Amino acid sequence: MAMPNVNFFEAGKADLTPKEKEIIARRERLLGPAYRLSYQHPLHIVRGEGVWLYDAGGKTYLDAYNNVPCVGHCHPHVIAALAKQASTLNVHTRYMHEAVLDYAEKLLATFPAELGHVMFTCSGSEANDLACRFAEVYTGGTGFIATELAYHGGTKVAAEISPSLGGFAKNAPHVRLIPAPDAYRAQGQDVGAVFAAHVQRAIQDMQAHGIRPAALIVDTIFASDGVFADPPGFLTQAAEVIRKAGGLFIADEVQAGFGRTGEQMWGFERHGLVPDIATMGKPMGAGYPMAGLAIKPEIVKGFSSQSRYFNTFGGTPVAAAVGLAVLEVIEREQLMENVSAVGHHLRQGLKKLAIKHPLIGDVRGAGLYIAAELVRDRKTLEPATAETERVVNSLREKRVLISSAGISSNILKIRPPLTFSKDNADLLLAKLDEALAAL
Amino acid sequence: MAMPNVNFFEAGKADLTPKEKEIIARRERLLGPAYRLSYQHPLHIVRGEGVWLYDAGGKTYLDAYNNVPCVGHCHPHVIAALAKQASTLNVHTRYMHEAVLDYAEKLLATFPAELGHVMFTCSGSEANDLACRFAEVYTGGTGFIATELAYHGGTKVAAEISPSLGGFAKNAPHVRLIPAPDAYRAQGQDVGAVFAAHVQRAIQDMQAHGIRPAALIVDTIFASDGVFADPPGFLTQAAEVIRKAGGLFIADEVQAGFGRTGEQMWGFERHGLVPDIATMGKPMGAGYPMAGLAIKPEIVKGFSSQSRYFNTFGGTPVAAAVGLAVLEVIEREQLMENVSAVGHHLRQGLKKLAIKHPLIGDVRGAGLYIAAELVRDRKTLEPATAETERVVNSLREKRVLISSAGISSNILKIRPPLTFSKDNADLLLAKLDEALAAL
Repeated sequence: MAMPNVNFFEAGKADLTPKEKEIIARRERLLGPAYRLSYQHPLHIVRGEGVWLYDAGGKTYLDAYNNVPCVGHCHPHVIAALAKQASTLNVHTRYMHEAVLDYAEKLLATFPAELGHVMFTCSGSEANDLACRFAEVYTGGTGFIATELAYHGGTKVAAEISPSLGGFAKNAPHVRLIPAPDAYRAQGQDVGAVFAAHVQRAIQDMQAHGIRPAALIVDTIFASDGVFADPPGFLTQAAEVIRKAGGLFIADEVQAGFGRTGEQMWGFERHGLVPDIATMGKPMGAGYPMAGLAIKPEIVKGFSSQSRYFNTFGGTPVAAAVGLAVLEVIEREQLMENVSAVGHHLRQGLKKLAIKHPLIGDVRGAGLYIAAELVRDRKTLEPATAETERVVNSLREKRVLISSAGISSNILKIRPPLTFSKDNADLLLAKLDEALAAL
Repeated sequence: MAMPNVNFFEAGKADLTPKEKEIIARRERLLGPAYRLSYQHPLHIVRGEGVWLYDAGGKTYLDAYNNVPCVGHCHPHVIAALAKQASTLNVHTRYMHEAVLDYAEKLLATFPAELGHVMFTCSGSEANDLACRFAEVYTGGTGFIATELAYHGGTKVAAEISPSLGGFAKNAPHVRLIPAPDAYRAQGQDVGAVFAAHVQRAIQDMQAHGIRPAALIVDTIFASDGVFADPPGFLTQAAEVIRKAGGLFIADEVQAGFGRTGEQMWGFERHGLVPDIATMGKPMGAGYPMAGLAIKPEIVKGFSSQSRYFNTFGGTPVAAAVGLAVLEVIEREQLMENVSAVGHHLRQGLKKLAIKHPLIGDVRGAGLYIAAELVRDRKTLEPATAETERVVNSLREKRVLISSAGISSNILKIRPPLTFSKDNADLLLAKLDEALAAL
């Protein structure tokens, strides 16, 4: 199963300038074939500010795709914190420093009290890798359950639970893949019960093969699977099932976390449960490479008596200063309130577009993690894969950046910076209306 | 086998101020037991500049330990590049940007032509994890050979080849651990031949257990094993042996790379060989979280046809700008020449101290990666473990920061920023003389 390809560059499909051809040739020569570009006509972006990106030709793009610069591109408060601390001190955590503690305290205060410790890494991949190691040591199990098109990162351990990357997950004997809780295609079924039943079957299959379950890991917004947020609470039964079998419930908050869903800071809160480990990444430093996990203290304890964990770049004074600045901006600019309001407005606008454009079969999501699923027939739900690719690329020509998701790459994925305004949403809706009309 | 503990804080051994007690209590409460502090009396560092660190009480410390700030703490050229690019644009590599290509070009130019591609990650752990995945896919093998006290990182894959972290490597059925090429304790034997013979035996043992070798991975300065640099060329036979068995030779340059050994940019060059993959980390961004690998193109090719690799924070315009600035400082300030000259001066000074202090059994290393092995008896070579701990902690009281290494924690490890001067070296030597005299 390959990763949805809709946004990746397919050579020859676009009219490239000599400069663009030169850059692409240099990329292939220097970086090799593992590097991909977005869009049929890749973008040559040189500057970012707020929700706007600017290309080398001076064109302006509305960014409704990038979640890493969560407080907007190049936010001055974050840059100031970064520059100040980087010119003062940037060392590892084996000396005492108060910044990491102030940050840890503020961050932990956003989690349920059961998650008593926080640990810092550089990337979400490292956070998920470490979470899996913790789960193995704590449970004595080796089996992991993930969803069919999940993405949890690029280390070997993370890739094995990331079927969206290709064959690694399918070939990992200790991993079981289950369908994501897709309420649109479930057509009235209780998705929480169905999802829990899949977890139960995966556990039984593991046990039949002599594998003890270590954890169920889910991206709490199911981003690459196709964005599934409703009904709230649908994860509760699955978490109970994995725990009954001796495994942990790991909430991967790399996509859903840091206020992205508006009503709550963390995606798992939407489902009224407390994970054993919550991992964080991408938006945590608004572009500065930092990630981490919040974890129940009893899980760290056993691990630390057997081994050590140290991360050179994790939790440095610079990472702490940047992370703190991001939390401050989310608070001061009331971004969660903005996300709720603009997210609602955008979903309403998409639902209006769905009346006009029967291709839009479903509009869903939470806060500013929004999906519009394109189908050729509202009864058969046949995926409109080619149309989705055309819409995403057409929006790029109209200078609005979004993406796609799902096994058939037929789901428009809208995931702008949290500072996205109603005006920004209206511009996106107008351009999407045009793109759909032109199909 | 536990990681050498000499530098870690043991509660109650030092007189702590109320503030220090408060910080330590907060660390334990917020970060949990996996976090450790250096020294019996941990340092509360608040500022860094060049080779100097400053504590909360205004005391100044000579930093002869930290290799991450390779161009000196808070180098203005690096900070300026960081601040400028961070306030302009900080996005992933799926848009075209020239900074990553300019950096890749400059970086690859420092490697032999066979290493034709460079790929970017956030941490050396991620780089080594990815290198191992490349080796598995390319060779079809799963077996890895590492040295007995190696450290290659903190992801699960990296931890399994990092026996210095504890039991993970010993318990990994696909990993074979071999003694590092220790010329001091080899007492006249050909360490290169002995090391190659160990590799050969490890391969045979793997094959006897049905395991196909994927790679031999070595830190080319053997930092945590005890710092082994001589005689130059001692890695050549081992590389031939692993290749004959179908495995790759991976040079982990996280410790030895970026001019640290003075005479050459990369540690493997000292041994006159070309690795299949060279991984980089810590000093690459002088504190900015970045790492990567240089790799033979044919190895990337097969991997990319099966799977993908993407790293959100790897190779961003900011990482590229910072990495480029670090290379520029190394060049402009002629740091490799400085490393050679000061490294030689410091080793000569240590050898003079060895005449006065019989505890110093051996002085070795390359450039500014220097070790002084402390032994109680120059014939039996009995490790002076307790003395080493006292010396390291006593130097901290004398405001000079070094560390220790080796299975018996009896090796002083000296690894200052590359800007370390002869005067800095003389200060270190004077304080070390005092510390040894006071034993």
